[in-house]
Amino acid sequence: MSVTKTLFPLVSVDVALFSIERDRLGVLLVKRANEPELHRWALPGGVLKPDLDANLESAARRVLQAKISVDVPHLEEVRTFSGAERDPRGWSVAVLFYALLPADRVQAVISSKIEEAKWAPAARTGHRLAFDHDRQLDAALGALRRKVEEHTLPLHLLPSRFTLTALQHTCELILERRFDKAAFRRRLKTSSDLQAVPGEFVRGVQRPAQLYEARPGFTFARSSS
Amino acid sequence: MSVTKTLFPLVSVDVALFSIERDRLGVLLVKRANEPELHRWALPGGVLKPDLDANLESAARRVLQAKISVDVPHLEEVRTFSGAERDPRGWSVAVLFYALLPADRVQAVISSKIEEAKWAPAARTGHRLAFDHDRQLDAALGALRRKVEEHTLPLHLLPSRFTLTALQHTCELILERRFDKAAFRRRLKTSSDLQAVPGEFVRGVQRPAQLYEARPGFTFARSSS
Repeated sequence: MSVTKTLFPLVSVDVALFSIERDRLGVLLVKRANEPELHRWALPGGVLKPDLDANLESAARRVLQAKISVDVPHLEEVRTFSGAERDPRGWSVAVLFYALLPADRVQAVISSKIEEAKWAPAARTGHRLAFDHDRQLDAALGALRRKVEEHTLPLHLLPSRFTLTALQHTCELILERRFDKAAFRRRLKTSSDLQAVPGEFVRGVQRPAQLYEARPGFTFARSSS
Repeated sequence: MSVTKTLFPLVSVDVALFSIERDRLGVLLVKRANEPELHRWALPGGVLKPDLDANLESAARRVLQAKISVDVPHLEEVRTFSGAERDPRGWSVAVLFYALLPADRVQAVISSKIEEAKWAPAARTGHRLAFDHDRQLDAALGALRRKVEEHTLPLHLLPSRFTLTALQHTCELILERRFDKAAFRRRLKTSSDLQAVPGEFVRGVQRPAQLYEARPGFTFARSSS
């Protein structure tokens, strides 16, 4: 290891990109095309470039654009992973973010892939991921679930207009448990994050279902009331 | 700016150290003894040393030990602050932690100070802090308050044995609002983080008050039930 690397740690960003696909919470994995960990599945990530990146979140957006040609509406920082052991290139800091991609854009991401990429079930990917990315994915999934447990609505995972049934189902897929429909709807009535789209309905099993959308200014960063 | 600095950002750790002192939530400030921002009040912090630090949390513990000779029971990562503008030395990443110091150790910190240090009210320090430390302090205070709002008991701020009245008062100082005593005690009855110390009481205004302590294995990291 060179003196430079000892004095200046490698700083990178990794992103757990979640979406609803095939009726489950999915995470996007990319197969590494370079050493170290060549050919291993990993979260998309890359090394910070101070000459290109305004800050770490910008770096994460650049990496998503470069690796899988996607812009995400929302990035949330989870935590750092650091130390001498996690990357064979030397002492490193990885800053983990998660991002939410609307379900109707899942197909676009797969078809635009520059390298091999796929969606895997977020809770059980079926792979041992590169570096400490298994731990990172656990941390990102935990952070997303905590937000939804705290009643923050995962509206960025839904199409721009959605039914309350679709919203409840999305929350259930994230938390892997069922909600009581009446209690869920009572909670939504006090939410300032949602609004009905006047006159817009979809055919339901019994009666037409009202379509909703996020209120202007909705942000996943704060908890919903 | 050198090429090395452009390729490898400066990585540092900063710590908002909170305690209860003078019946308020206090944060420890240190006066900077070096450029940049010479003589300005700041959160204690320092540059990551990959040759000394196992990870970023270890770096934060080393900095607290070196600057103010204190070991803290608990460190919690808040978030990163990054970019070209926040430190005149170049593109930098600061990883912010907060730490909780028991009230009965406040005096020891002040008397052991190596450089000028003082406790200031966390919500209104009365200073414009160095670098982006005002924003950092806001973020750390917000993170602490969210934990307490989520019913995580700030037991690390209390002496090892305490009354429920003292615990309630500490929560009230952090959140800057009053709790209903009966509702607060009902909530504590279901908490697995507390236990009564058999036979230990202190004289109360009306009757002796039971002393409590944290259960073995208590950690501030997870939410209390």
